[in-house]
Amino acid sequence: MSCPLPALDFDIISLGHGSGGLLTNKLLVEAIFKLFHNEYLDQHHDGAVFELNGPTAFSTDSFVVSPIFFPGGNIGERAVNGTVNDLAMCGAIPRFLSLSLILEEGLKIEDLWRVLVSAKEASERSGVQIVTGDTKVVDRGKGDLIFINTAGLGTLHTNAKIGFDRIKKGDVIVTSGTLANHGVAILSVREGLAFESPILSDTINLNHKIKSMLDDFGIKIHFLRDPTRGGVATVLNEIAINSKLGISIDEASVPVKPEVQGACEILGLDPIYIANEGIFLAIVSADISEKLLETMRSKYNLGEATIIGEIVEDHAGKVIMNSSIGGKRVVNMLLEISFQEFVRVH
Amino acid sequence: MSCPLPALDFDIISLGHGSGGLLTNKLLVEAIFKLFHNEYLDQHHDGAVFELNGPTAFSTDSFVVSPIFFPGGNIGERAVNGTVNDLAMCGAIPRFLSLSLILEEGLKIEDLWRVLVSAKEASERSGVQIVTGDTKVVDRGKGDLIFINTAGLGTLHTNAKIGFDRIKKGDVIVTSGTLANHGVAILSVREGLAFESPILSDTINLNHKIKSMLDDFGIKIHFLRDPTRGGVATVLNEIAINSKLGISIDEASVPVKPEVQGACEILGLDPIYIANEGIFLAIVSADISEKLLETMRSKYNLGEATIIGEIVEDHAGKVIMNSSIGGKRVVNMLLEISFQEFVRVH
Repeated sequence: MSCPLPALDFDIISLGHGSGGLLTNKLLVEAIFKLFHNEYLDQHHDGAVFELNGPTAFSTDSFVVSPIFFPGGNIGERAVNGTVNDLAMCGAIPRFLSLSLILEEGLKIEDLWRVLVSAKEASERSGVQIVTGDTKVVDRGKGDLIFINTAGLGTLHTNAKIGFDRIKKGDVIVTSGTLANHGVAILSVREGLAFESPILSDTINLNHKIKSMLDDFGIKIHFLRDPTRGGVATVLNEIAINSKLGISIDEASVPVKPEVQGACEILGLDPIYIANEGIFLAIVSADISEKLLETMRSKYNLGEATIIGEIVEDHAGKVIMNSSIGGKRVVNMLLEISFQEFVRVH
Repeated sequence: MSCPLPALDFDIISLGHGSGGLLTNKLLVEAIFKLFHNEYLDQHHDGAVFELNGPTAFSTDSFVVSPIFFPGGNIGERAVNGTVNDLAMCGAIPRFLSLSLILEEGLKIEDLWRVLVSAKEASERSGVQIVTGDTKVVDRGKGDLIFINTAGLGTLHTNAKIGFDRIKKGDVIVTSGTLANHGVAILSVREGLAFESPILSDTINLNHKIKSMLDDFGIKIHFLRDPTRGGVATVLNEIAINSKLGISIDEASVPVKPEVQGACEILGLDPIYIANEGIFLAIVSADISEKLLETMRSKYNLGEATIIGEIVEDHAGKVIMNSSIGGKRVVNMLLEISFQEFVRVH
């Protein structure tokens, strides 16, 4: 670990760390402020002040994933990547983040530190600064180790013009990579499943790739969304409803890693409903689709980018899947929780 | 209640409401989006996009107060007022807020609705728009009914110049009102204490008053802070440490309502350590102190505004209290949690 745990005279979180008094101060000044320090946070004020000009995107997410450490990542980097990606999906260059912790009494400082160091590293990878935050502590049994909220701000890319109203008939739907890795990684841990090759979460920041795509293709990119909770199926339904158009998907073209497909079959799950944390869906003008796909694969290092479907005028508000065996079926939003565990993948 | 609970086909929160699927969608579209609707939220995108120009303040806070309904308020308005006030303390005019919910499975929709309506009303009172948000659900026993995070953005008042570095020797310290009302209101409920006249939380938005003060006194206002967690004593210690100056307080001048003072005596608490949610401390140039006090009392409707002390060169980094009986004592940060309940007043 590049940032060693500072010497503190406590090794678990107690209610006092949320009191606002001396223990809170110690935790903040001797650990958190030092780890994240920058010109804004160093002010130790109630908020950060900076200059922002022009169109700005603002987004927030709370992260309650359990377990907090999972194959391929932990809640700290997830919390940073999640909001960074939401900003990127608005067509923005993420710049500033807040980080707010709700800690459960009894949490090991060592675990907190691992999570925070991951958050710090994730912020560096995505080029954002964590400029303000908050720490609260709840009684044992009133939380679940760590919940993290991040809120973020980004400056709109000058080429970006993203919105449901820009989606039109004939647009193609591209996924930047394979589906269901994050959800299946977490479910495997929860269900105690062991696979020959471990399935890892795909949690990662997508903002640099989105920036390149907007640099290169600008207003030909009509819509972006990361298919997190509820998976690709749910996001496509939201898109169909909000754009008042239909969506047609080819089952055979939906990319899923064989080991993830295998795990889904064992568990009786459909990958299109499973949460992703490292892919995005782009809805783009048909005339750039081949060029975009080639560029995604070669230049953006997205070797598994695939066209999975298109926007149609028929069946407005609905998503239709053309199955591998020639049939058609309606793909609904995630309807019921077949695996309750799935709720806490974020 | 001005906003009736919409007809939903569920009356408690289940894990499905956090799935990202149909139940989440229903809760959002039929209740939350309708309640808060505005041009930004109506986009249903991952974030809100707006124009912000010039110096901007950004702040966040998570609210975990228990009970969620308390005398004088509830967690919904607290969550809005808290971030609004943090922005105001930076010298900003609050404009946009995010609202992120962590709900516990089993929460009554009716209670959620009361909290949300309060948040909505509080946002209207303070003139901010709730433009983005998030909803997560945690398993029963892994949360505590409702936790709320708000993050907010405000445009710096053109007259504002607030910072630890602006505090200087001779400055006077003003409190805008009486101490300890919020903390004692909550503790009374927790401890099952009943007083003749109920003690109410002072939760309120302070931004309009701060704006007036900056309009009228501008750069003569050197520092602002709302003494929430840890109370006035802890905030003054932070100010002494960060400004590298001393603080001298007169015990006799610290305003506390008689019923709150009485409750503190019964409970063995010192009001200067108790959380406040409706007052602010201002550190201002001595030459405006009388004019400011008169203006606060007559024009800003802060009848209990009082000068409680001053900034001195002696005992840098320390807060000294001149007691009513002529002695002096060091006032430390909140050191220990004598009443654990106090931790969850936010």
